[in-house]
Amino acid sequence: MPNILIVISYDGTNYSGFQIQANAPTIQAEIERALAVIYKEPVRIAGAGRTDAGVHAYGQSASFKAPFTIETDQLPSALNSLLPPDIVALKAYEVPESFHARFDAKSKTYSYSIDRAPYSQVLSRLYNWHMPEPINMEKLQRAAKIFEGTYDFKSFQASGARVTDTTRTIYRVDIEENCDNRQLKLYISGSGFLYRMVRMITGTIIRAGKGDLTLSDIETALTSHNSKVMGPTAPAHGLCLEEIIYDIF
Amino acid sequence: MPNILIVISYDGTNYSGFQIQANAPTIQAEIERALAVIYKEPVRIAGAGRTDAGVHAYGQSASFKAPFTIETDQLPSALNSLLPPDIVALKAYEVPESFHARFDAKSKTYSYSIDRAPYSQVLSRLYNWHMPEPINMEKLQRAAKIFEGTYDFKSFQASGARVTDTTRTIYRVDIEENCDNRQLKLYISGSGFLYRMVRMITGTIIRAGKGDLTLSDIETALTSHNSKVMGPTAPAHGLCLEEIIYDIF
Repeated sequence: MPNILIVISYDGTNYSGFQIQANAPTIQAEIERALAVIYKEPVRIAGAGRTDAGVHAYGQSASFKAPFTIETDQLPSALNSLLPPDIVALKAYEVPESFHARFDAKSKTYSYSIDRAPYSQVLSRLYNWHMPEPINMEKLQRAAKIFEGTYDFKSFQASGARVTDTTRTIYRVDIEENCDNRQLKLYISGSGFLYRMVRMITGTIIRAGKGDLTLSDIETALTSHNSKVMGPTAPAHGLCLEEIIYDIF
Repeated sequence: MPNILIVISYDGTNYSGFQIQANAPTIQAEIERALAVIYKEPVRIAGAGRTDAGVHAYGQSASFKAPFTIETDQLPSALNSLLPPDIVALKAYEVPESFHARFDAKSKTYSYSIDRAPYSQVLSRLYNWHMPEPINMEKLQRAAKIFEGTYDFKSFQASGARVTDTTRTIYRVDIEENCDNRQLKLYISGSGFLYRMVRMITGTIIRAGKGDLTLSDIETALTSHNSKVMGPTAPAHGLCLEEIIYDIF
């Protein structure tokens, strides 16, 4: 059976997250439904990042064993004719038999978008956290850089996760000011992320930028796993899974 | 009674247009409902541009006679606490007694956004017309410039309009390529526009860019009012009322 990797964009607003679950609309269920029409039998996909309810993706990846060969050039448009308008397949590749979209991911990049206008910018409200309060940009940038490196992020995960190894490496955290400073965009790339880790890191960086946390508070939280000093979990709708990087390309 | 001008943004996706109508959600109805709470009596507003169903606004204007004085600095946040999240008041001004948001508008600017990516960019799909077909940019630009000037635009209005004077002046039509040529944005400014005129002009310019109309076809349509050669009316969701200009500011 050919092993296929697809790259997918979606608007997470109306979904209960990527991963399939009973009685709730999910991205995975929509994609598997479309694939079942194409291949005329059930197909199970493995997503690289299991995005939470309300989280978006520009470049999510998923792999699956295809019952038969279809030209990978044709697969995205076949899928898009069957998918709802808020899920779009961008590309498809045939990959080695042993390849798995989640286990073989070398790096993941998320973005977090913050609307800085005094009143919410309506046409981007579904994809930005509206946070107009004053922020010290220098402090924000310095707080972001603290997270770069390899740490045990066990205090930066939401309860309910069942992971034993909570050490992760963050390669970069970059913050850009866009659109005449009316938007902040945070990019975070790492080897992998714990449950809600990106949103907890974002909330913590923002809290430092607002002056409610010192940089040493953050260093302490990272090294001594003191979760009391952290910021609030930033809301889901500002988060977007930008890209998954693999070695095979 | 103080005469007040408010500037409003909205996402038109879920509305049957600006202008109030029975049994359909409208922008005007939502704003009047919020104003009635603030002023404790019915308030009727006059919108500068009566945007159609599904059309958005970045800077719509509306004026109304206020039953009593409220600091204009306070009015937007008071309104925003009462409005749904897809309608946002940005500013309020006290204006001369005789001022009327529609009759005193000197110029209106609309934008029309076109998604040029091979597959729809999901996070902007609600605000862009997805049109990936090849376009000759030079022809597109030249077609746009033909519309600048004062013409009788009677063949560039949808049926159902009841306007006797159909002469309008278009000051500028500019087309920008954004986001690595993955988006086209057309800006059109004029003294005023007939019913669906901006969407009909956009459809015609695009048709010329695709090579299905010559520039002289467009000149003929404008001067001899031959509507047979025009392009299709571009869909509502790509259109956005950007700004209304008044002499008083």
